[in-house]
Amino acid sequence: MTTDPPSVTVGVDFGTLSGRALVVDTADGRELGSAVHEYTHGVVDEALPGGAALPPDWALQIPQDWRDVLRFAVPRALEAAGVRPRQVVGIATDFTACTVLPATWDGTPLCELPGYRDRPHAYPKLWRHHAAQPEADLIVRRAEESGQAWLARYGGRISSEWQYAKALQVLREDRAVYDAADRWIEAADWIVWQLTGEENRNPCTAGYKGVHQDGRYPDAAFLASLDPDFAGFTAKLDHPLSALGAPAGKLSAAAAALTGLREGTVVAVGNVDAHVTSAAAQALDPGHMLAIMGTSTCHIMNSDVLAEVPGMCGVVRDGVVPGLWGYEAGQSGVGDIFAWAVRTAAPHAYAAEARGRGISVHELLTEKAAAQPVGGHGLLALDWHSGNRSVLVDHHLSGLIVGLTLDTRPEDVYRALVEATAFGTRTIVEAFEQAGVPVTDFTAAGGLLRNRFLMQTYSDVLNRPVNVLASEQGPALGAAIHAAVAAGVHPDIRAASAAMGRLQRHAFTPDPARAAAYEPLFAEYRALHDHFGRGGSDVMHRLRALRAAT
Amino acid sequence: MTTDPPSVTVGVDFGTLSGRALVVDTADGRELGSAVHEYTHGVVDEALPGGAALPPDWALQIPQDWRDVLRFAVPRALEAAGVRPRQVVGIATDFTACTVLPATWDGTPLCELPGYRDRPHAYPKLWRHHAAQPEADLIVRRAEESGQAWLARYGGRISSEWQYAKALQVLREDRAVYDAADRWIEAADWIVWQLTGEENRNPCTAGYKGVHQDGRYPDAAFLASLDPDFAGFTAKLDHPLSALGAPAGKLSAAAAALTGLREGTVVAVGNVDAHVTSAAAQALDPGHMLAIMGTSTCHIMNSDVLAEVPGMCGVVRDGVVPGLWGYEAGQSGVGDIFAWAVRTAAPHAYAAEARGRGISVHELLTEKAAAQPVGGHGLLALDWHSGNRSVLVDHHLSGLIVGLTLDTRPEDVYRALVEATAFGTRTIVEAFEQAGVPVTDFTAAGGLLRNRFLMQTYSDVLNRPVNVLASEQGPALGAAIHAAVAAGVHPDIRAASAAMGRLQRHAFTPDPARAAAYEPLFAEYRALHDHFGRGGSDVMHRLRALRAAT
Repeated sequence: MTTDPPSVTVGVDFGTLSGRALVVDTADGRELGSAVHEYTHGVVDEALPGGAALPPDWALQIPQDWRDVLRFAVPRALEAAGVRPRQVVGIATDFTACTVLPATWDGTPLCELPGYRDRPHAYPKLWRHHAAQPEADLIVRRAEESGQAWLARYGGRISSEWQYAKALQVLREDRAVYDAADRWIEAADWIVWQLTGEENRNPCTAGYKGVHQDGRYPDAAFLASLDPDFAGFTAKLDHPLSALGAPAGKLSAAAAALTGLREGTVVAVGNVDAHVTSAAAQALDPGHMLAIMGTSTCHIMNSDVLAEVPGMCGVVRDGVVPGLWGYEAGQSGVGDIFAWAVRTAAPHAYAAEARGRGISVHELLTEKAAAQPVGGHGLLALDWHSGNRSVLVDHHLSGLIVGLTLDTRPEDVYRALVEATAFGTRTIVEAFEQAGVPVTDFTAAGGLLRNRFLMQTYSDVLNRPVNVLASEQGPALGAAIHAAVAAGVHPDIRAASAAMGRLQRHAFTPDPARAAAYEPLFAEYRALHDHFGRGGSDVMHRLRALRAAT
Repeated sequence: MTTDPPSVTVGVDFGTLSGRALVVDTADGRELGSAVHEYTHGVVDEALPGGAALPPDWALQIPQDWRDVLRFAVPRALEAAGVRPRQVVGIATDFTACTVLPATWDGTPLCELPGYRDRPHAYPKLWRHHAAQPEADLIVRRAEESGQAWLARYGGRISSEWQYAKALQVLREDRAVYDAADRWIEAADWIVWQLTGEENRNPCTAGYKGVHQDGRYPDAAFLASLDPDFAGFTAKLDHPLSALGAPAGKLSAAAAALTGLREGTVVAVGNVDAHVTSAAAQALDPGHMLAIMGTSTCHIMNSDVLAEVPGMCGVVRDGVVPGLWGYEAGQSGVGDIFAWAVRTAAPHAYAAEARGRGISVHELLTEKAAAQPVGGHGLLALDWHSGNRSVLVDHHLSGLIVGLTLDTRPEDVYRALVEATAFGTRTIVEAFEQAGVPVTDFTAAGGLLRNRFLMQTYSDVLNRPVNVLASEQGPALGAAIHAAVAAGVHPDIRAASAAMGRLQRHAFTPDPARAAAYEPLFAEYRALHDHFGRGGSDVMHRLRALRAAT
């Protein structure tokens, strides 16, 4: 008996340090093969390739590194999957965001033009370029002053990471680059342009990073209030937005030569890594929250309700799937707080024990912490080591730990920090529900899934089952699902997700005794949260101000 | 030219793990020689020498270990000093307190009698025996109920470490031992009895540990309210109290044989290690506070004013020198908090660096912390890891740290903890002054003196000069000074202290810029102190209760 060779799509996930191509069976989502290409230049945060030094807080990338992912990782993934180009019915991409660059009318990055190679502002600014904070502060201040309605859809805050702050920094610091930039474009859209040869824009980055709401960008009067010469900025953005899951175009001859795919293969509209993961995790229905848990946590949830949830990062119509409001919230510090504890609070003997047993210090601390009864360490922490994104939207808050005694051990602190991040997640879930946006399901994805104790703690603290994304390549799988929709294999993203997504339902269920024991501790967390985060004591801000003044 | 050989005294300091004899020139306090004898049995906290296991929180000692200090350390110290017994005009002792034992009418410890060797309650209870907490709680409750006037002189709290709680535990748990104990005597007095052959009692332990106030012990009605059979307890204590610095008697023939000193050598009245150090540090004048800084800190100060200072440990007339009110206050955790930080929060790389450079991790952290500007770490800590003795008198409080970020380093936490203990000291100094008991001078003694950064921080935080005791053997030197008074070489303790004490005045003076920079941080400390310690938030107690319930 013979079967037809499967019809496949390719999802390409562009991360911070590397890109990954994944070949997926469009029938059932089976992952047939993948390949990773590390960026040659990684994050450019000290000096340009030509040698020019960068100021603090800068983070750039090199477009050729991204093209090299198409050139190397895509053919290798096909080879690993054992599929031929004619089996590939579509390709889709997802990108970090807001990673954004100045380009000419034909999509050429300015940094690749003669005369611009030594100008830092001609290069793509990576999402974690943080040098545009003064511009972000100005944007918020002017938006508050002029009562911009869109501000509430971003929890009252426009990030320095987003399109407007970064572009305004270019205008202020390198006018020639600003003027030469015909287009100001997300890498998520630029990479699609490389594949099809035609500009295309997606509603996800436009909405979450470009402040596109109710069909328009902020108006010229507002932009002029930031800088008179900024009034016409949106001309560099303007372009119709395509629906997510729609085809952006067909693979060009040049891109076919680059990737080894067939010219004319369908290319899907661009997307963002976190948001596209919802398709992989079958977390698209209203009320189904996806938490992508890594160094920080990003929460994505669709709803048919529009509400101003306190401290959300953004709400965008059609931002995750067409026809629904896509919400985003976030915890600024999660895995990086645990890494901080390992870095600063794991003594010599623990490092030696972990080394001797061939496990990581994270694993050792987890093992020592896991057996404790709830409340046994007597500690309570606030997980604000890099501020609080949701629900307080205050990056000048800081971490706190109370209950320390001479008997407090490193594993006690570690467990208290894990619990604090779980309390932080519960605070976000409750904020949605209290704002009238129900949360019916909770699914986790991301690197922290590997820590089963942590996931169980989240289930106990949330007192609800936790589903998990059963793929280690969530963004690439999500992109492959979008490619299958664009290619017409499935009628829409939700149907494709149902067929190709990988959800392990109720992977963790709450232990009733532990869930009950966490109730009084969560009440204590909430009390400390409100005291230090909502004006009871402003000591965290004052300590930060004293520190800044030294 | 020949000079007369110096007239010397011997001070013998009985510590927790060893005893030290010091030979001192009575003219100028020069330390001529010393010797240490480690106790054979150290702290008996797991099992009696015969094998009987001890419950948790017990801590006993063996009287023969103390005699062995007289037998070995005294002659060796004389030998090291190169002095002959006839040069020794007096001997004095000081002891840990409240270290207390049951004895017969002739001073024989019950544990040395046949039939009692396997009974834990027949042994001396070391100061840090903490198994009498229920008895201490009962004493405080009954004292509050019946309005005992003496309670306020102990900050409203009678410690489980003191004479009454320990004796009541014996009554409740081993009635035969209680009944057989003709005498219930502090080791500070028992050791003098060993030297002179006659019972003698000192006013320092009687006052601070035995609740002897205004010339009497608590009355029989109060004692009966604790247990009807406890009504006559003070018969085991009753004995005239000798003045500090007075002779208790003459060295007996047996003690002369034991120590190698001449029979008839003057023996001074017993004393407590912390309190006797005041004489060594020339900290006897009213308003001159001595802080003995080690794992914890003990504050001793004389005053001609009687006041109820909030949270003091005790105030005793003639308790440090005759004619003045002697105040004692304390910080439960100081050096042991720094040790906790080294134990739990100094990572592998720091341990390796310290080892490579041949310094301790304490020294490494101090070095890294010392160069920071005030407020540069952005942290604030509460130094309550083992509760708060003064001024809150609450051992169920716990440590807190706020201001943590992903950039927070171990040396930042270490510095914040050092600063927190300095803030704690300032809180005590201000409590005295606000109660109308002026603090005019501040002198430090104890092991933490070696850390110059820490001492400078105390001077900056207190914003006053800090004197230091310029001897590493403060208690033994203080005892030798008392011996010189008892022998009549000097007319009184203050005169002897002036001649023989070792004070380095203004060893540390505040840096005006740092002192000013600490003002807002101390205000923040006080705000957190009052919020968590005075009822704003009771979270520390609730966390402890949750922990105890697991």
